[in-house]
Amino acid sequence: MQLSFTAQQIADFLKGTIEGDPTVKVSDFSKIEEGKPGSLSFLANPKYTNYIYSTEASVVLVNNDFVAEKPVKATLIRVFNAYAGLAMLLDMVEKSKPRKKGIEPMSFVADSAKLGSDVYVGAFAYIADGSIIGDNTLVHPQVYIGEGCTIGDNTILYPGVKIYPGCKIGNNCIIHAGAVIGSDGFGFAPEGDIYKKIPQMGIVIIEDDVEIGANTTIDRAVMDATIIRHGVKLDNLIQVAHNVEIGANTVMAAQSGISGSTKLGKHCVIGGQAGLGGHITIGDNASIGGQAGVISNIKENAQILGSPAIPVKDFFKSSIIFPKLPDMYRQLNQLEKEIQQLKEEQNKQSK
Amino acid sequence: MQLSFTAQQIADFLKGTIEGDPTVKVSDFSKIEEGKPGSLSFLANPKYTNYIYSTEASVVLVNNDFVAEKPVKATLIRVFNAYAGLAMLLDMVEKSKPRKKGIEPMSFVADSAKLGSDVYVGAFAYIADGSIIGDNTLVHPQVYIGEGCTIGDNTILYPGVKIYPGCKIGNNCIIHAGAVIGSDGFGFAPEGDIYKKIPQMGIVIIEDDVEIGANTTIDRAVMDATIIRHGVKLDNLIQVAHNVEIGANTVMAAQSGISGSTKLGKHCVIGGQAGLGGHITIGDNASIGGQAGVISNIKENAQILGSPAIPVKDFFKSSIIFPKLPDMYRQLNQLEKEIQQLKEEQNKQSK
Amino acid sequence: MQLSFTAQQIADFLKGTIEGDPTVKVSDFSKIEEGKPGSLSFLANPKYTNYIYSTEASVVLVNNDFVAEKPVKATLIRVFNAYAGLAMLLDMVEKSKPRKKGIEPMSFVADSAKLGSDVYVGAFAYIADGSIIGDNTLVHPQVYIGEGCTIGDNTILYPGVKIYPGCKIGNNCIIHAGAVIGSDGFGFAPEGDIYKKIPQMGIVIIEDDVEIGANTTIDRAVMDATIIRHGVKLDNLIQVAHNVEIGANTVMAAQSGISGSTKLGKHCVIGGQAGLGGHITIGDNASIGGQAGVISNIKENAQILGSPAIPVKDFFKSSIIFPKLPDMYRQLNQLEKEIQQLKEEQNKQSK
Repeated sequence: MQLSFTAQQIADFLKGTIEGDPTVKVSDFSKIEEGKPGSLSFLANPKYTNYIYSTEASVVLVNNDFVAEKPVKATLIRVFNAYAGLAMLLDMVEKSKPRKKGIEPMSFVADSAKLGSDVYVGAFAYIADGSIIGDNTLVHPQVYIGEGCTIGDNTILYPGVKIYPGCKIGNNCIIHAGAVIGSDGFGFAPEGDIYKKIPQMGIVIIEDDVEIGANTTIDRAVMDATIIRHGVKLDNLIQVAHNVEIGANTVMAAQSGISGSTKLGKHCVIGGQAGLGGHITIGDNASIGGQAGVISNIKENAQILGSPAIPVKDFFKSSIIFPKLPDMYRQLNQLEKEIQQLKEEQNKQSK
Repeated sequence: MQLSFTAQQIADFLKGTIEGDPTVKVSDFSKIEEGKPGSLSFLANPKYTNYIYSTEASVVLVNNDFVAEKPVKATLIRVFNAYAGLAMLLDMVEKSKPRKKGIEPMSFVADSAKLGSDVYVGAFAYIADGSIIGDNTLVHPQVYIGEGCTIGDNTILYPGVKIYPGCKIGNNCIIHAGAVIGSDGFGFAPEGDIYKKIPQMGIVIIEDDVEIGANTTIDRAVMDATIIRHGVKLDNLIQVAHNVEIGANTVMAAQSGISGSTKLGKHCVIGGQAGLGGHITIGDNASIGGQAGVISNIKENAQILGSPAIPVKDFFKSSIIFPKLPDMYRQLNQLEKEIQQLKEEQNKQSK
Repeated sequence: MQLSFTAQQIADFLKGTIEGDPTVKVSDFSKIEEGKPGSLSFLANPKYTNYIYSTEASVVLVNNDFVAEKPVKATLIRVFNAYAGLAMLLDMVEKSKPRKKGIEPMSFVADSAKLGSDVYVGAFAYIADGSIIGDNTLVHPQVYIGEGCTIGDNTILYPGVKIYPGCKIGNNCIIHAGAVIGSDGFGFAPEGDIYKKIPQMGIVIIEDDVEIGANTTIDRAVMDATIIRHGVKLDNLIQVAHNVEIGANTVMAAQSGISGSTKLGKHCVIGGQAGLGGHITIGDNASIGGQAGVISNIKENAQILGSPAIPVKDFFKSSIIFPKLPDMYRQLNQLEKEIQQLKEEQNKQSK
């Protein structure tokens, strides 16, 4: 937290009510099971309830409906939703940190590039000809921004982000270290035994409020654009191929990947290491489980799992049977023999 | 396109024939379903045929055998193969772009490094002692080239590529941002409870005409070399372990990985997120599907899928049955009961 | 090797015994099947035994119990364990290489940062305010070390490593190019249709003797720390989510991933492309196979495979049956018909 607040100040900020000493001070956060004196913790998940009676945390956020069954040493702050309250506090602390601005020496900003007000450009960052950087945007050290890119306001490019020429990034975006935006799509035409490169002339468009994880890669389109709609959240090490479109507020977990020209709807949830084939359409609100392999269109609201993916309930039902396969195989062959014997016996009897 | 051509000029270049206004000008590419006036589009996939009657694109490349069933507003250029024609046009435009050359200030080139003619070295690039860079090669900003590397002619190293000491890259290669060439192989000898590092003394050799995707990693060999043969195309986020050899003109889709000492033949196709075990051999022209897990040698021309991988037809046939497993399980147990009853009845009758 | 040793010198170093010419010199390593004159090779795996009779290597390390069945041209050095002997030699050569030190121009070291003795800081590296770098540590070009980080002694940060503010790295660690340590965990709270970011206030702690592969990503905790215990070895392109803890001497192969808050025990082995769900516990010495998907707690010493993962023996037994599913399905339906006929026949007979 690197700041210090009394329980009363926090309760006022969160519009909560205090039980215990309102003057106790906290200057750090901790998990309830590892709570240290001088720290603030929270209880949101009921399976951690027992820890509230033994935690050393000085202040604990709890839901309004929490009922203590034993004495609690910590000062409690009751709020409507303890987890949301915690997020508000973390956010407040985050925003109180000083924000860098100014252009550090040993950075390269092309004469024809345009920087908004209060921009930060770290050392060893490279901003090429004709690029435009919006107000309050942070371009951390070792970032590369190619020719003719547009970056919006209040966006953070963490160290080492690489943005190829011509790409457009919106406002309030966060792109983590090592992410690559606008690399060539994987497009080759077979020509006898060899593959001839099809130049990738399009760009990547990233709308507002998008977060992109560390070392994630998003390829530029063959022509037109690969598009990441507003509010999308991508985790680390994700692959987004050329001409993909990801609908607004869709979230994808780490190491998942999308093949070329596939379109995802809004508000989908894609699990870790899931893979989506090319040229397919995923409906709004679809949920695709971890390690799923998707090779055909998926309807909105579908919940699928497995490779190839099937409805999640069906997948789990069949997965429970899978370890029984060797027994089923033996049983089936045994039954076949018994039926053969039954037939022979019946034949005898019928004579 | 950032250039402007008349339909006539394009038809001449592609040796095609014109239907419509030969003087109409285009200065951009577009997909047929999103075609804009002043742009050139193409029709190669029959499932997009309907769009040709409504597209706003000024010029459309079509195959010689295309037969219009309704009036078409755009000028048509008939060619032998519309997709190949498009690739030729994209290529021509790509090659007309000015190519950077010269050494930017704030780059580091060791005194003992040798640069060919017309090399570009971007700011914050680092070229260490004894490295040799071929003619016309582009070393973009923030690239690292370790001691004693050799890079061929006409090769492009995009921003942030890292090449460890001693590695050799051929001519006409393209290595995308964030790729790492020559990191240590994952080699450890267990020694009681701990793992002792086995120094990785080999290198990586990349032959001519290889393309390597963003954030892909290729480890150096324990001794000798990890080898990527000519014409290989690797997508993004691929892992190539130590002592692997990838045969000429093999292509690998994103997020696939190869374990140590495995040898791939020529002209193989590896799907996205596929994983190959260590110390195995994959024959020429093998096709390994997305998310496949390969743990044994694979013959040439084989087509496999699944984890562990089996012939692709078998995999799909069994995958269709997989969701029926719970029903099969119930049915099997039901049949067992019925057989028991049949036996008992038969026993009664036989008495 | 870039050095030159006689067979006698090597035998003395390894406490081995010589058969053949003790004065022959070697200056390189080679694999036995590709052995070149002037190089040293080794025979550890019996399946390569045949090569010892034809190898051109000048010296071959063999196990004490090796019995030649034909004449061998090379000088043999007999040691207790040929593979361990090789590792010792590789290690000795590695350590004899000159180690860089000093601060290169065009690097950035904040005034408030503290550097130990004999530290190397490469050009275009960035060391932010308040960071502390231990003795003999190598900070290669283009590395980023954020505010308030602590890096131990004898640690190597390869080119382009990015370490976010506040993280702690131990002694004798090796972090390969492009790895990202301390990026934000993937934490969002749904708020209507959108996802609100939960600031990630924790850090990453990496203990001693840890190796981290190229382009691997390790996220910082929401609060407290993501912890990598001593001796852990992570391969390339691995994802470690926020609040994960990896126990001492656990090894993970490339492209595997761990979801948030999961705890791995000591001395586990995780195969390539395996995925571990969130909030689970993996016991000590567990072995999780390649591409496994783990969604529940795993006991110590367990060996599991598949997605969802089951005991490895069960997985292979069922995998053998999987391709027989279409036949089983037909057979089952055939048996059902035959039972129906048997019943009808029995009914007739009983009348």
